[in-house]
Amino acid sequence: MSISERLETYFREHRERHLQELYEFLRIPSISSLSVHTPDIISAAKWLAQQLTSVGLENARVIPTQGHPIVYGEWLGAAGKPTILIYGHYDVQPVDPLELWETPPFEPAIRDGKLYARGASDDKGQVFMHIKAIEAMLKCTGELPVNVKFCLEGEEEIGSPHIGAFIEAHQDLLAADVLLISDTPLWEAGQPAICYGLKGLCGLQVDVRGPSEDLHSGLYGGMIHNPLHALAHLLSTLFEPDGRIAIAGFYDQVKPITEAEKAEFGCIPYDETAVRDELGVPCLFGEQGYTVLERNWARPTLDINGMWGGFQGEGTKTVIPAEAHAKITCRLVNDQDPEEILMLVERHLHQHTPAGIALSTTGMNSAAKPYVSSIDHPAIQAAARSYQSTYGVRPIYTRMGASIPAAEIFFRLLHLPIVLLGFGLPDENCHAPNEHFHLQNFETGLQTICCYYKEISTIRSL
Amino acid sequence: MSISERLETYFREHRERHLQELYEFLRIPSISSLSVHTPDIISAAKWLAQQLTSVGLENARVIPTQGHPIVYGEWLGAAGKPTILIYGHYDVQPVDPLELWETPPFEPAIRDGKLYARGASDDKGQVFMHIKAIEAMLKCTGELPVNVKFCLEGEEEIGSPHIGAFIEAHQDLLAADVLLISDTPLWEAGQPAICYGLKGLCGLQVDVRGPSEDLHSGLYGGMIHNPLHALAHLLSTLFEPDGRIAIAGFYDQVKPITEAEKAEFGCIPYDETAVRDELGVPCLFGEQGYTVLERNWARPTLDINGMWGGFQGEGTKTVIPAEAHAKITCRLVNDQDPEEILMLVERHLHQHTPAGIALSTTGMNSAAKPYVSSIDHPAIQAAARSYQSTYGVRPIYTRMGASIPAAEIFFRLLHLPIVLLGFGLPDENCHAPNEHFHLQNFETGLQTICCYYKEISTIRSL
Repeated sequence: MSISERLETYFREHRERHLQELYEFLRIPSISSLSVHTPDIISAAKWLAQQLTSVGLENARVIPTQGHPIVYGEWLGAAGKPTILIYGHYDVQPVDPLELWETPPFEPAIRDGKLYARGASDDKGQVFMHIKAIEAMLKCTGELPVNVKFCLEGEEEIGSPHIGAFIEAHQDLLAADVLLISDTPLWEAGQPAICYGLKGLCGLQVDVRGPSEDLHSGLYGGMIHNPLHALAHLLSTLFEPDGRIAIAGFYDQVKPITEAEKAEFGCIPYDETAVRDELGVPCLFGEQGYTVLERNWARPTLDINGMWGGFQGEGTKTVIPAEAHAKITCRLVNDQDPEEILMLVERHLHQHTPAGIALSTTGMNSAAKPYVSSIDHPAIQAAARSYQSTYGVRPIYTRMGASIPAAEIFFRLLHLPIVLLGFGLPDENCHAPNEHFHLQNFETGLQTICCYYKEISTIRSL
Repeated sequence: MSISERLETYFREHRERHLQELYEFLRIPSISSLSVHTPDIISAAKWLAQQLTSVGLENARVIPTQGHPIVYGEWLGAAGKPTILIYGHYDVQPVDPLELWETPPFEPAIRDGKLYARGASDDKGQVFMHIKAIEAMLKCTGELPVNVKFCLEGEEEIGSPHIGAFIEAHQDLLAADVLLISDTPLWEAGQPAICYGLKGLCGLQVDVRGPSEDLHSGLYGGMIHNPLHALAHLLSTLFEPDGRIAIAGFYDQVKPITEAEKAEFGCIPYDETAVRDELGVPCLFGEQGYTVLERNWARPTLDINGMWGGFQGEGTKTVIPAEAHAKITCRLVNDQDPEEILMLVERHLHQHTPAGIALSTTGMNSAAKPYVSSIDHPAIQAAARSYQSTYGVRPIYTRMGASIPAAEIFFRLLHLPIVLLGFGLPDENCHAPNEHFHLQNFETGLQTICCYYKEISTIRSL
């Protein structure tokens, strides 16, 4: 029996126990953004460290940070072989609106071949797969083909505010040849995808203030600038009618999309009509002169994420409110710098603030730089071969409109190539009610991970 | 002893009992906008009807409407004399934020010569003064110099939605020569003012909708029109940079301010710097080419009263929300029609809605037409003489940026001249925490009311 057959048998025979263990992990409500769940964060970290030890990893431990702890573990028995650093996260998104969940978010349930639970796909399920892949290889062969280190954090869903300081302080501990992350989706069922580009992120809250108190719109109408008018005006100045962002300098550092990349994007089977119908809009919209994929993957965007002020109740209240607010985030591409873009946005807002209105802005704590790698890198080509051997088709190469802040930080601080070897599907409701994970990809994914460790072990120079 | 001396003595000797009775009235939390207080509305109406009876009015009763009831009462013993119809309201505004009240809103308390309670000024206190003026005149002289009818409603603070139908159904009952309302402020302490113009009102809620669900701004950024962008854009199109309203046709029916009225406004002692400092803004703002008083009193305005959508919590949520909302009201002047203006606003919004966004609008239930009377009317000149005889100074003539919807309805349906004979002060926190009423104006006001009844009785033709 070949090694891969032995692994397959092992996975099949231990499937039920593996699922029970994953349920244990998923039952811990490790929501990082809500301080009431800090004890659950600690529980999840401890559970992970015990898992790492139990499958045969060494020096597994929970390491404190200024925020939620990081779980580390290693197996360094493959002398002369490359070292894979596996990054993932054990924290999850909040679950509201709770009433939209068909089964409780922290009581795992299987329906139609899908495992439903918060974190099933993002990212507990995929972190767990790496642990079980290692368990299987160690049990079946007594060794791993490569050296492995785990670095699992508890703050990914809140923007990874402390991972940079942790990496800087633990450069020797984390030294490796490749960073492997399983936290991205396949293109669609049966069609793997390798994401080679992530967007950067910056954001701010905008607060405008007019009179010192809410005023009666009859007694004071026509006298002063209404903060809601000022905010609507300010926000409207951020955009051109053609969808471009109207902030001076915003695009200055944006690298044009190459003709080669445009051609690659054009080959991807992307059905704009289906997307339009799925989203329930009469038409798609964005910066003119670019396709939808180009806009989402390779052009920067700016979104107002929230806006509020004045009366929101039923009926009418004739008030001129004292203040109004908005939250804005920008998704960035190379070579935009989050701090510089934040400064440009703030400068634009200050320049366009009307008379009689006081503006203040607060930058968000966690920002991320954009990241794009070359698909020719041998660590990425090894991932392509692994996907092809288990899914039976060549993966497509994609970028993402979203961010994984830690990826760029690892790249910048440790100079590691980054491989995004994910097994989710785009419609698995990450960050939404009824998050789930397709068990078919749990099975095929375990084999793909084992295959990737083997592929990496054959590469001489990374 | 003259009649006015006898009245003064009566008021002094019965002051404490009058205040105790007013406390009873003020203790009833008759908040019209909150259905939980409907029993209190009924209690307040019954209390009023009993008061009317107890002071000597006839046929006092609580008359049901489609909404909160109306309290009616009459004294028709002055054969051949004019009839005064007294309109007021026994409902009050909500009290939140409750924590800002120094004493509970429904436990009347006197501090520094001011009576603190919700409704003390707006309008229970001023309704009560008319009842006590009549009590005094009947007790001291056995009769009134004029015929009197009361029409006291319980829905003024929610826009008087049923007063029109009530008036139409009770034209004979309400037949009179003049409508008297005590629900407006003096100009300042010691300086009475006769308001001869009220603004109209119309309003709507604006709902914009994009995708069928909230979306992740990374996964869908650059793909669709963000409803918050659309709403900010839509609202910004309502205004010109110079403060004019940019809606086609909005000003078409606006009567220009006459040179005579401009001159009168210019004579009013109005300190823009003091107002600016009081409101806590660096500068005042509004339609160019008009003074602050002209804008507030005699030019139409449009205010966004509320705006909301997306994430309003702490921190960041990278969401593209499915929908966004705003509430808008317009204050109108002659000869703007609320329904026509509403239609113009809705048409403008639909014309400016960007592609990919669905717009719906909902007009508010209660609208009001603007109302302006001539200050030369003998019923108004009688009010001027009454103020002068009790306050010792000539009243100034003012308009208001606010609305009393019932006033214009009485005028239109019953063809009555309207006299706004109020005794509040502008800073008495109507609609806000710590509403209060200056007891000095309670005393002087009672005498002014008695004086006005006498003045009206001498007018042959109204």
